[in-house]
Formats: sequence, C-alpha cells, structure tokens
Amino acid sequence: MTVTIRVATAADTPLILGFIRELAEYERLADAVEATEADIRRDLFGENPRCFCDIAELDGRAVGFALWFYNYSTFKGRAGIYVEDLFVSPEARGRGLGKALFRGLARRCEDAGLGRLEWAVLDWNAPAIAFYDSLGAGALDDWTVRRLHGEALRKLAGS
Amino acid sequence: MTVTIRVATAADTPLILGFIRELAEYERLADAVEATEADIRRDLFGENPRCFCDIAELDGRAVGFALWFYNYSTFKGRAGIYVEDLFVSPEARGRGLGKALFRGLARRCEDAGLGRLEWAVLDWNAPAIAFYDSLGAGALDDWTVRRLHGEALRKLAGS
Repeated sequence: MTVTIRVATAADTPLILGFIRELAEYERLADAVEATEADIRRDLFGENPRCFCDIAELDGRAVGFALWFYNYSTFKGRAGIYVEDLFVSPEARGRGLGKALFRGLARRCEDAGLGRLEWAVLDWNAPAIAFYDSLGAGALDDWTVRRLHGEALRKLAGS
Repeated sequence: MTVTIRVATAADTPLILGFIRELAEYERLADAVEATEADIRRDLFGENPRCFCDIAELDGRAVGFALWFYNYSTFKGRAGIYVEDLFVSPEARGRGLGKALFRGLARRCEDAGLGRLEWAVLDWNAPAIAFYDSLGAGALDDWTVRRLHGEALRKLAGS
C-alpha cells in the first residue's frame, strides 16, 4: 500500500469538484455547492490563483484532497496556511491519508517559514475532532466566525 | 466631522504596527505580538503581498484600520475577504468609523464579485458582537477553528 501526496494540476479539476461535493454531502451541506469546473479552473489554476490543492493517492488512485490558501497572523507578522477543505473517500479511510495530507501542509509551513496551520471543524464531527486532538491542534474555543453574504452584504455595501 | 477610508501605503507601516499592538492589548493578548515593521513592510507592501490594509481617518487623522486577506469558498467557487484585524482607537469610537471600514470591505466584495466577508470575534467582546449583529452578520456557531503551531507543527512536519 503506497500513500502519495502530490500537488494538483488543472487536469484534476473534475476530481476536485467531485471531492468538494462529497465533502459537502458529508457535512450535510450538499445544497450549498454552487461551484463549477470553470470556477475551480480559474481560481486554482488560472493567472491569479486564490487557493491551492494537494491530492492524496492510494496505490496511484486519487482518494482525497486538501484545499488551502494563505492566511495571515498580524501578531506573528507571518503568513500561515488555512485548510478550507480536507477529505478522504470513505473506502480509503483508516490508512493514514488524512494525516499524510496534514503532514504535507505542515512541511510546507516549515519549509516556507509560515507560522501556523489552521482549519475549522463542525462541532458534531467527533471522528475528525479526535483526529485533530491526536495531532496536538489547539481549539480556538473563545472565537466565533461571523459572516456577511448575500442580501446583508449587498445592503452594507450600498449603505 | 469627516470620515475617510483609504488604502494603506508603506508609509503607514509604523501606524499599522501601533494599531496591531493596541488591538492585542484590547484582546488581552499583548504578549503575543512578535511582528516587526520589517514583517509588515514585507507582507503588506512587498513584491508578494500576503494581506492588505485600509486606514480610517477622522478629520484627516488616522484612527483605525482593517487588515484583510483573500479567503476562498469551495462551495461558492469564489474568493471572499477575511478580516484578520479591525480596530478603532477608543477616543474615536461611536462615530461610525468601524462601520465605514466594514462598508468599504463590503463594497470591495461587491465590486470584485467576492462571495462573502468574514471575521472572528472573541466571545466576551459584547460591544463588538452587538455591532456585528446590527450588520446582519451570521454566526458560525457550530464551527471551531483548530490551530497547529510551534512544537506541534514541527513535530507533525518531521513525522
């Protein structure tokens, strides 16, 4: 059994969109997926990439992904990595692929002098929480993310 | 009384670092600030900017800032704006400067086709929470941010 992590290319666009949809189903948010292949191609592989993607392979077959972008800590005065999505197909779980994806991101942080690696987890996702605890990841329990979108965002912009 | 929002320039570097330190004191995290002027100059105004900054002025005097970077929604297939820091000096509060900073960011989202505007708030910061509620911002109550840094990050990278 060989686990490989590789950087995604434009040819992976349909694969990545498939993983995004599978993850959304797992998160009970399937209706929220509006992204198209054109969106993914433009924002990951276009002239002005907004985010980046690693693919996890098991014996040469793509079975998972991590999609990330650079965030920033003003306290550290250093950029970091924020993992927006991380997913391993159910049939490939328990073989260390999730950890291999995180390890790859941690190495990228260390190699590039980035200060931290962050992501968010749904409160009911007990298997994920146990895995993140095992990595030694702290929980920012006293912070809540706030979000403006849709009509509220338009209203503020027009005020 | 004139409120102006302008994009920060490299000449604002000492001002921005001062705001970062004032914000950290307010958040009871002053010891966490390691950033230097060289860090800010490199990451905001260098060849490869990691984040961006708006300055709020009251009658021509700089009294607040918003520091932000692009994040990404894979569900929307669109980038968004994440506000890492937003601060108005205590003596200038109650004059709409915080809202003007948010309005500027909301307009940037609308103008650039960005899908959402996000930030995080400390659970004890009641005045900020009331303000964000007034903007119509949703709370991502069922998500917790996890963070790897320092020794735990190095350990994972080396595993």
